[in-house]
Amino acid sequence: MNAFVKLRTLSVGAVTVGGIFACGVYNHQSKKNVVIAKTVEARNDTGKYMAEPVTPMAKLAADSSMQSSMELFIMGVQADLCRALEEIEGKRQFTVDRWERKEGGGGITCIMDDGKVFERAGVNISVVKGNLPPKAVEQMRARGRKLEQGKTLPFFAAGVSCVIHPRNPMIPTMHFNYRYFEVEQDGKKIWWFGGGTDLTPYYLDKTDVTHFHRTLKRACDTHNLSYYGKFKKWCDDYFVIQFRGERRGVGGIFFDDLDTPSQEEAFAFVKECANAVAPCYLPIVLKHKDDGYGYAERQWQLLRRGRYVEFNLVYDRGTKFGLFTPGARIESILMSLPSSAKWAYKHTPKEGSKEHELLQVLKNPKDWV
Amino acid sequence: MNAFVKLRTLSVGAVTVGGIFACGVYNHQSKKNVVIAKTVEARNDTGKYMAEPVTPMAKLAADSSMQSSMELFIMGVQADLCRALEEIEGKRQFTVDRWERKEGGGGITCIMDDGKVFERAGVNISVVKGNLPPKAVEQMRARGRKLEQGKTLPFFAAGVSCVIHPRNPMIPTMHFNYRYFEVEQDGKKIWWFGGGTDLTPYYLDKTDVTHFHRTLKRACDTHNLSYYGKFKKWCDDYFVIQFRGERRGVGGIFFDDLDTPSQEEAFAFVKECANAVAPCYLPIVLKHKDDGYGYAERQWQLLRRGRYVEFNLVYDRGTKFGLFTPGARIESILMSLPSSAKWAYKHTPKEGSKEHELLQVLKNPKDWV
Repeated sequence: MNAFVKLRTLSVGAVTVGGIFACGVYNHQSKKNVVIAKTVEARNDTGKYMAEPVTPMAKLAADSSMQSSMELFIMGVQADLCRALEEIEGKRQFTVDRWERKEGGGGITCIMDDGKVFERAGVNISVVKGNLPPKAVEQMRARGRKLEQGKTLPFFAAGVSCVIHPRNPMIPTMHFNYRYFEVEQDGKKIWWFGGGTDLTPYYLDKTDVTHFHRTLKRACDTHNLSYYGKFKKWCDDYFVIQFRGERRGVGGIFFDDLDTPSQEEAFAFVKECANAVAPCYLPIVLKHKDDGYGYAERQWQLLRRGRYVEFNLVYDRGTKFGLFTPGARIESILMSLPSSAKWAYKHTPKEGSKEHELLQVLKNPKDWV
Repeated sequence: MNAFVKLRTLSVGAVTVGGIFACGVYNHQSKKNVVIAKTVEARNDTGKYMAEPVTPMAKLAADSSMQSSMELFIMGVQADLCRALEEIEGKRQFTVDRWERKEGGGGITCIMDDGKVFERAGVNISVVKGNLPPKAVEQMRARGRKLEQGKTLPFFAAGVSCVIHPRNPMIPTMHFNYRYFEVEQDGKKIWWFGGGTDLTPYYLDKTDVTHFHRTLKRACDTHNLSYYGKFKKWCDDYFVIQFRGERRGVGGIFFDDLDTPSQEEAFAFVKECANAVAPCYLPIVLKHKDDGYGYAERQWQLLRRGRYVEFNLVYDRGTKFGLFTPGARIESILMSLPSSAKWAYKHTPKEGSKEHELLQVLKNPKDWV
């Protein structure tokens, strides 16, 4: 079983890291080999994850449940992405913070602050169990899950989430989150997956956005030809700052309550999506990381980061769920906030400006593929 | 009637502006006279408010209803405070933005951004009427107001609100808000007042905090000896960032649903509180506006401003009510946010530091008088 685990995570690593370079933007052949070798080595020794898993490794290795499979998978996603980001950043490394939750479970928060390329990048995994308070059950009921009202229900959740706020305003912010949920009711397990990947540019580069969406579509199409259209719309409808009548960014995909066609196939889809993150995004980072910009562009980026804060604190279901869950790890939840944000009264970009162009797309989402 | 109005607003102006200087911190006798003269002159000409009132002046002058009295009062509070702040700031003046609300009513937003003393200061009045959506009615019911569930009810609201974020980290941020509310149900008017004044220091100056609370207590005691204790506790209980287990600041007073002992007496109390704002706060601004500070103090101020954003967007009832009210003026609501804020992962001040000292008080509110 241990060999199987190693093989699985190895393959995850290879797909992810390989995928970054498959996009043709970043083509330093020599570096490519170095990274893949490093990842393989890491996968050969499970101690080379970012930290010890929340669940003891021996238990994970001996268990074929979805809880364990998901935990091992997200550990790999975290390690691969962190290493790929460190490779781009240069000397600076992620700070790894392994934490335990009094009520059960814990997580590994990897954070890089104040980097040259990444002003703030956070990759967090959490594996938690406990009892869902009635308020949280209510939120799930509101989405259509058949759960009993007013009850406290045992739950399990494992997920990886990540927000990358680069320093250069020409590089978009990127967020993704993939999670597996189980709730127990009347002795029966109800399970589902959720997640998504979305992009928040400060300046619109249509080629980048098309690349981002195309890569996501490719991942979706492998599993179900209806997914991309449905989940792209879901994303456009979800990341909306209602009171401003604008979206947080140019979208991507978003889904929740995925429990079809089977647990294994839903898991395979989630893996496909998570593995698509690096090829979606890293080429964009590499393309723009040395672009020139000035004070005005930085100010616009900070104002848009203010909007990011507004969405996350006022609307984001994940954030709100976290903030109102007793014993939740606030620092890991608020890791999604940028390190700096600004607000200005009635800031209105000039018609015809690049800032105005972005706003138009945030107000009227487009088809990108 | 017109003469009565002039007299009333004149006296408001005198109390407020007089009050600033009565505290003994700011004692340039020559300036004192200039300011008071300016205020008197302003009051003699109703056109010298910050802008034309939302309700036509002729109607306000001819009407003795509480709606009109409150509107005139808050116009005066706004004008007096803005002028006092401009006096401190120096050359820079408030930008005045008068706006109308499609659904009824409007407001006057006065904002000063990027000043020498005031990084951002906003003084806003709004006078709105329309229909309260059931969600808002539900919020009021939750507080104990006897309103029917699931109904849309006609309402009127007039209030003044203000947030001042000074540049110097040695000067606390100050917020106040005083409002009058009417809801109509079954042809009957239900009315109440609400409001409060609170202080958010970045560094603790106990003398300042005591002065601030003492001034509020004096205002409360004039009307009811039980008010200060009750409203101070209400404030401590209200301005809490629950998920951090800390208060936004060192409190002040906060109350809602005040409809006793009579409308006139409740109004008199609200006037007393609003008139206490300047003597509460301006001496603190004047005392610290030239204090020295460095990079570390500025960083701490920005982190604390991040907390301010968290409270306002996640918890503040007024902000949430506004953001979810159709047709609300978002820019005026979000005027309360600082122009800059920061977040850092797991920022923990060193034990024994001034930053740590502040945190202790935010975690365990104290008695200040």
